[in-house]
Amino acid sequence: MKFDTVIKGGTLVGAAETVSADVGISGERIAALGVDLPTDGAEVVSAAGRLVFPGGIDVHTHLDMPFGGTTTADDFESGTVAAACGGTTSIIDFAIQYRGEDLRRGLEVWHRKAEGRAAIDYAFHMICTDLPDDRLAEMDRLVRDEGVTSFKLFMAYPGVFMVDDATIFRAMLRTRDNGGMVCMHAENGGVIEVLVQRALAQGHTAPKYHALTRPMSAEAEATRRAIALAEMARVPLYIVHLSAGDAMEEVRRARDRGVPAFAETCPQYLFLSDEDYERPGFEGAKYVMSPPLRPRGNEERLWGGLASNALQVVSTDHCSFCMTGPAGKDLGRDDFSKIPNGAPGIETRLLLLYDGGVNGGRLSPNRFVDLVSTTPAKLFGLYPRKGSLQPGADADLVIWDPAKVVTISAASHHMKVDYNPYEGRTVRGAPAHVFLRGRRVVTEGRFTGRAGGGTFLKRSARSA
Amino acid sequence: MKFDTVIKGGTLVGAAETVSADVGISGERIAALGVDLPTDGAEVVSAAGRLVFPGGIDVHTHLDMPFGGTTTADDFESGTVAAACGGTTSIIDFAIQYRGEDLRRGLEVWHRKAEGRAAIDYAFHMICTDLPDDRLAEMDRLVRDEGVTSFKLFMAYPGVFMVDDATIFRAMLRTRDNGGMVCMHAENGGVIEVLVQRALAQGHTAPKYHALTRPMSAEAEATRRAIALAEMARVPLYIVHLSAGDAMEEVRRARDRGVPAFAETCPQYLFLSDEDYERPGFEGAKYVMSPPLRPRGNEERLWGGLASNALQVVSTDHCSFCMTGPAGKDLGRDDFSKIPNGAPGIETRLLLLYDGGVNGGRLSPNRFVDLVSTTPAKLFGLYPRKGSLQPGADADLVIWDPAKVVTISAASHHMKVDYNPYEGRTVRGAPAHVFLRGRRVVTEGRFTGRAGGGTFLKRSARSA
Amino acid sequence: MKFDTVIKGGTLVGAAETVSADVGISGERIAALGVDLPTDGAEVVSAAGRLVFPGGIDVHTHLDMPFGGTTTADDFESGTVAAACGGTTSIIDFAIQYRGEDLRRGLEVWHRKAEGRAAIDYAFHMICTDLPDDRLAEMDRLVRDEGVTSFKLFMAYPGVFMVDDATIFRAMLRTRDNGGMVCMHAENGGVIEVLVQRALAQGHTAPKYHALTRPMSAEAEATRRAIALAEMARVPLYIVHLSAGDAMEEVRRARDRGVPAFAETCPQYLFLSDEDYERPGFEGAKYVMSPPLRPRGNEERLWGGLASNALQVVSTDHCSFCMTGPAGKDLGRDDFSKIPNGAPGIETRLLLLYDGGVNGGRLSPNRFVDLVSTTPAKLFGLYPRKGSLQPGADADLVIWDPAKVVTISAASHHMKVDYNPYEGRTVRGAPAHVFLRGRRVVTEGRFTGRAGGGTFLKRSARSA
Amino acid sequence: MKFDTVIKGGTLVGAAETVSADVGISGERIAALGVDLPTDGAEVVSAAGRLVFPGGIDVHTHLDMPFGGTTTADDFESGTVAAACGGTTSIIDFAIQYRGEDLRRGLEVWHRKAEGRAAIDYAFHMICTDLPDDRLAEMDRLVRDEGVTSFKLFMAYPGVFMVDDATIFRAMLRTRDNGGMVCMHAENGGVIEVLVQRALAQGHTAPKYHALTRPMSAEAEATRRAIALAEMARVPLYIVHLSAGDAMEEVRRARDRGVPAFAETCPQYLFLSDEDYERPGFEGAKYVMSPPLRPRGNEERLWGGLASNALQVVSTDHCSFCMTGPAGKDLGRDDFSKIPNGAPGIETRLLLLYDGGVNGGRLSPNRFVDLVSTTPAKLFGLYPRKGSLQPGADADLVIWDPAKVVTISAASHHMKVDYNPYEGRTVRGAPAHVFLRGRRVVTEGRFTGRAGGGTFLKRSARSA
Repeated sequence: MKFDTVIKGGTLVGAAETVSADVGISGERIAALGVDLPTDGAEVVSAAGRLVFPGGIDVHTHLDMPFGGTTTADDFESGTVAAACGGTTSIIDFAIQYRGEDLRRGLEVWHRKAEGRAAIDYAFHMICTDLPDDRLAEMDRLVRDEGVTSFKLFMAYPGVFMVDDATIFRAMLRTRDNGGMVCMHAENGGVIEVLVQRALAQGHTAPKYHALTRPMSAEAEATRRAIALAEMARVPLYIVHLSAGDAMEEVRRARDRGVPAFAETCPQYLFLSDEDYERPGFEGAKYVMSPPLRPRGNEERLWGGLASNALQVVSTDHCSFCMTGPAGKDLGRDDFSKIPNGAPGIETRLLLLYDGGVNGGRLSPNRFVDLVSTTPAKLFGLYPRKGSLQPGADADLVIWDPAKVVTISAASHHMKVDYNPYEGRTVRGAPAHVFLRGRRVVTEGRFTGRAGGGTFLKRSARSA
Repeated sequence: MKFDTVIKGGTLVGAAETVSADVGISGERIAALGVDLPTDGAEVVSAAGRLVFPGGIDVHTHLDMPFGGTTTADDFESGTVAAACGGTTSIIDFAIQYRGEDLRRGLEVWHRKAEGRAAIDYAFHMICTDLPDDRLAEMDRLVRDEGVTSFKLFMAYPGVFMVDDATIFRAMLRTRDNGGMVCMHAENGGVIEVLVQRALAQGHTAPKYHALTRPMSAEAEATRRAIALAEMARVPLYIVHLSAGDAMEEVRRARDRGVPAFAETCPQYLFLSDEDYERPGFEGAKYVMSPPLRPRGNEERLWGGLASNALQVVSTDHCSFCMTGPAGKDLGRDDFSKIPNGAPGIETRLLLLYDGGVNGGRLSPNRFVDLVSTTPAKLFGLYPRKGSLQPGADADLVIWDPAKVVTISAASHHMKVDYNPYEGRTVRGAPAHVFLRGRRVVTEGRFTGRAGGGTFLKRSARSA
Repeated sequence: MKFDTVIKGGTLVGAAETVSADVGISGERIAALGVDLPTDGAEVVSAAGRLVFPGGIDVHTHLDMPFGGTTTADDFESGTVAAACGGTTSIIDFAIQYRGEDLRRGLEVWHRKAEGRAAIDYAFHMICTDLPDDRLAEMDRLVRDEGVTSFKLFMAYPGVFMVDDATIFRAMLRTRDNGGMVCMHAENGGVIEVLVQRALAQGHTAPKYHALTRPMSAEAEATRRAIALAEMARVPLYIVHLSAGDAMEEVRRARDRGVPAFAETCPQYLFLSDEDYERPGFEGAKYVMSPPLRPRGNEERLWGGLASNALQVVSTDHCSFCMTGPAGKDLGRDDFSKIPNGAPGIETRLLLLYDGGVNGGRLSPNRFVDLVSTTPAKLFGLYPRKGSLQPGADADLVIWDPAKVVTISAASHHMKVDYNPYEGRTVRGAPAHVFLRGRRVVTEGRFTGRAGGGTFLKRSARSA
Repeated sequence: MKFDTVIKGGTLVGAAETVSADVGISGERIAALGVDLPTDGAEVVSAAGRLVFPGGIDVHTHLDMPFGGTTTADDFESGTVAAACGGTTSIIDFAIQYRGEDLRRGLEVWHRKAEGRAAIDYAFHMICTDLPDDRLAEMDRLVRDEGVTSFKLFMAYPGVFMVDDATIFRAMLRTRDNGGMVCMHAENGGVIEVLVQRALAQGHTAPKYHALTRPMSAEAEATRRAIALAEMARVPLYIVHLSAGDAMEEVRRARDRGVPAFAETCPQYLFLSDEDYERPGFEGAKYVMSPPLRPRGNEERLWGGLASNALQVVSTDHCSFCMTGPAGKDLGRDDFSKIPNGAPGIETRLLLLYDGGVNGGRLSPNRFVDLVSTTPAKLFGLYPRKGSLQPGADADLVIWDPAKVVTISAASHHMKVDYNPYEGRTVRGAPAHVFLRGRRVVTEGRFTGRAGGGTFLKRSARSA
């Protein structure tokens, strides 16, 4: 038995099991796990005193995305380099179909954005903004032929992305037949629109009104509604960027009665709070994202939900805009509703979740891996190629140094954005090495891969 | 102390108390209750062995209403005569504002329908089908000047009555200021429309598909959503014709956390079930109403909710269409979606609820009175003039014979409709005499009042 | 129509209705309510600008009770005079059966304590400390012959009052046949005993350890257990002095599924908190009662439960011990477990609940009356003689001055105890006059009745 | 790389992952997993078309146990041979401490029962029937020195096994310090005793009264109580043989709020129902076990709980008594309360759960493995030595033939008991080969191991 690379002496952490074993890599795949694998002819990488995780999978990113007259700061190059440095080896980004366009057109545009630039593997969800009958047929084709098996719909942003319940329900019924899955932005856009208009009419323009006009109840309501529609359509459903504890309870209740409802949350909802909107001047704009940050106390409910499987995934909703310059947050200096929504996070997901979760005693290391890699892979049809350390899987893996202390800062991060929401926060635990299909893309913390080194992943349907 | 009429020896049943006392009536009002009231000069009506209730209040009727190209079978004369015979002395009917019209116009039309015809007292809710800004101002005027303090909105019937969440939320915010209350038809119209279209496309035209395309979940979802909107607007909310146990649980949960959410159910949901849609031929059309009848088992949940105050009111949603003739149910013989929605019930509400509730051991006599009279009066601003047997209240009262056995039948009912949904059902307990403002309008079971004897009731806001 | 007394121009507040009417009293009873009752020959008492309530009923008092080697500070004279001054006209006190004694013996002892001393009407519950088979037969006799229709059992105080689950269950099954009702002190005595022993072993002797060794979970657990036993026995159940929000949720859940479970709370749990145990020196001993005061935040849950009918009654658990002198709280100066449990409250119940509830916007005046008078009367078989302002009821009534401001103080209270837990608290609303069976026992705030003026009330079974 | 045995071409199923790989065994351990492991010098066992599971772990067995004057039919030899044939390679049996004895004595007795007889590996829990202070110190020693880290207490069987709440709470507090865990038989023994006495007094002696006197509520109550005690003691808790859906909801609620509560159910509660007590003659006695079989409908709730992780383990509570002969079920022919409680199941656990769960679409193969092997190993301190297919683990594994059809019958089973509760039931999926620490103990369905081949397992504390 010969390997190209042997990772020696690490503690392998999977979604359910922890093993002291070597990992033998041949070509792009994991060939064997063993107590004492032969190393003749192989590059040997020591993982003594370190953990070995399957590469992180971030199923919610927005790279090179137009939004409200500008474009996100990170494109597929800067975003994926940053992701790799943070231990993420695959992303699923959101392609957008605009009203009146067909789905394929949106997909082509996104293929062009990513190709030759992505430093890690990538796949696409498809955002649908209208779904007349012929578009429903295109959904089938994406699932069957294009490896795009998930479709995002919005219950918010009236006039832009929002679709009505009949449209949602029709889309869901279609996925019952074609094997796709609906991903939902669950906030009641009608309520929010009225609140925004009232706030502006009263002269409330500061960033904090972004949060005050998007109440937790508007999210809980929409979550409950999306679940009810999915339950009536008898299809699985995935709630994106769930932020409110009450919304989580709706997911939990559904799961308890056997409904295949799933939800992700994001580090921002676990670490930050609406107090950040009270920062001086316009600094609150850094935290303008949808859903907004929530009151203190909410985050512990989400941590509890991650532990108890009310929530299944941690993604980032990475969507970066600079604070300075004409293309960023400043667009909304005089009107909070014009602040581009979103914040950077693709690089810090594993660092934050490991520190707050594992070091914080809230999550076992297995659960951590399950949340950032294995379950994302399974839910979105990448498993067992991705999300696994087992023989046969892609050799995407992270050698994690649990003792390494990192201070998060815009000064050192790889994202092309001029601030970091966690500026100055110190965490313990970080990637030492990262492998993408057997090649080392991060070496002792430095990016050693290349733009264009990532490939497009055709996805299957969800595995159980 | 002198009275025009003394009701002697009855057992007075109020919402909380039961008293053995005489009732002294002077003019249109109750003047005194007493252990042994003087009868000199008064007409004495014996109530020995009988119960005395405040007159029933039916807060959900549709008389002389256009619907889907036809008009209900009962107008204000036939409907209110039937109501009186069943022990109901006040109704609140629904005036309709059509799109583009102002609210006042709808109100005027309904005043003309009722005036000079109604045999009992009446008031109006206002159905709103669009609410641009100027219409919101008209809402204020109706509350302030016209005694119309409740507004019904629809989450169902897209293209006809349905309004979107932003409209609902705006209306609710307006009632926060003007003191009105929103009444909600809570079914998810988008889902239902898709299901109806699919059923018809599959050739399913029989009446039972009416029920199969309006699932309980579509009602529970909309109920939860309406409550969430009201909670965010911080206003009370009234759910009309609640039919599904799961929808009731949403109301209960809201009430448990202190939200002023209220709901009515109707006798059809307590006594009938979706098995009635399986009747031979087109007979199921008799039971086509929205929400539809629900599966067996559901009705006991509603009975439980009436007892535990998860539900506060029993109304009828009386909306009668004949089975024979061109203007009725037959319009949908080839397409269930064209069957006029609704069923008669204005006459049988107290009979059914007393028999099933009080005789059936599910409700105390006090709770019965509370559900059919006192709480309706309080919620809709008629109390203490109506809904009460106390001194100062209108002398609307029912002398109830708890031993009288009645067999319900279209052959004997006073409603102008050619069938009765409860045909052949025998109940125990019925009105012997009914008084409207001191005048006897039913005497030993026969109508002795007159069309036009009823007056319009200007309503106040809800009392606590 | 002639009356001995006419109360003119008041606003009569009942459990469900509010009426502007006069009250005519003949002998000991209310003879009539009327819009303008004749006053010839009657004493006229003006109630203009005032409210008229049925006399308060306090269903949980301990007067002249031996406890832990001492006796309560208030006997039937001082306690009932204080009660009257606070607007309470009937109490139900707890007679005690000691192990090995028969129930009748306990009852006789309590009759002797009350007779000739009580200034208001009184009845008894029976505390049972053992229940061999022959004692179960005595239970029947008490219900049938003695007007004692409720039995209190303890899940706490091992070695003194505590009985095991088998005993509780046997007693419950017996009440199914004899029509009595079990009242439960619901705290897990086993857990508490272990915690007390551990605290003492660790040298923790201060009053605050009383609370720390009686956690809310121990109450919630026992409440759930008592309900489960009652549900299995298919009998109603009454939880005394419920203090913890989680215990209340157990009652609520039971009621929601149709179980006839009832619970009272007491003003101390609505107004005070465990912060009172932090008072300097030994002052925390004033608040040593069981269950103990709970953390801040808990009280609002209870207020919510009073409004939504998760709780049905407010009683006092009046059980007074002096702070000074050898017979009181000082017994536990060196050992919190020896502090006599209990606090005074019989005089301040209506004042506190009206101010916090009605003035505080948490309860309607009707609900206030329901909680302090009507429902207590119904649950414990005193209705309609007590708890009602309707014709035929005992003329026990309170003319309440809603504008009167009172500062609560041991310096002015009528209770024979040297402190008041609410010392210095100012409330608005107080009794102006109090009538007991037609006689005025409080006149403009002063006691004008007499010791011995109260009579024993034989109670019936619970009315629905 | 050389192996003693290579299992080729199987599909390895773990608690979270499914892998197509070979397994290389060296000595007693798994040495490697790999895509194409070298086989030179190794025995090669084909697993093509078959699944490979870690050996089953049955954490609830009663072998060679005295009960009610008799002894179970299976001893450690017959029981473990049967277990092996069913795919189980480790058991945890219950040693018993009788009142007044010390714990070590009970342990010694059980060591003697097992040593030299067990055909698979085994460990012990310790049943405690009294716990004075010195016994608590013995608990520490068992955890620290003897590898016995779990203690079973009974809330049922008064006078035999039942301990009171204070004892339970003291034991729990002790495990907080010594790292052990309490396992609870959760039924309210007091209620059951009263119901049994009443049934017998009424002449009800047939087997079905066993179920009628042990209501589901008595289990739900005790489960809630045990959880409350554990929550107050801040320790983990394990509920054995949970049978009632309502009891499961108590576990779920606790877990949702972060309490480390765990529960097992058993195949009998998933496949059988109280209808089995209606079998003719005395046949119902076969199903007399505690808790008893529950009404139809309950089992689907449990299946749902297994899927959603409200339940964590499936064990057997194997406790076999023959129907014929003087030492078995016949002891209770005239009095259901004398029927020895228990039924056989050690051999059929995997067969039933795989067929009902995996074939039935209720459980994924991973969840199946988690329930029967991995989580039992983790909860009871056997992981990663047991419950895992990963390198370094004991080579306990089952090569499972998913196509093999088996008809369960006493005629063919290996248990030494004269009936099978599932007689005649046909299932699909069964062990082809079973390995115990690298040695084959079942070969193509036949037992090829030996009595005494099993060793005692010293257990650690629960792993996360």
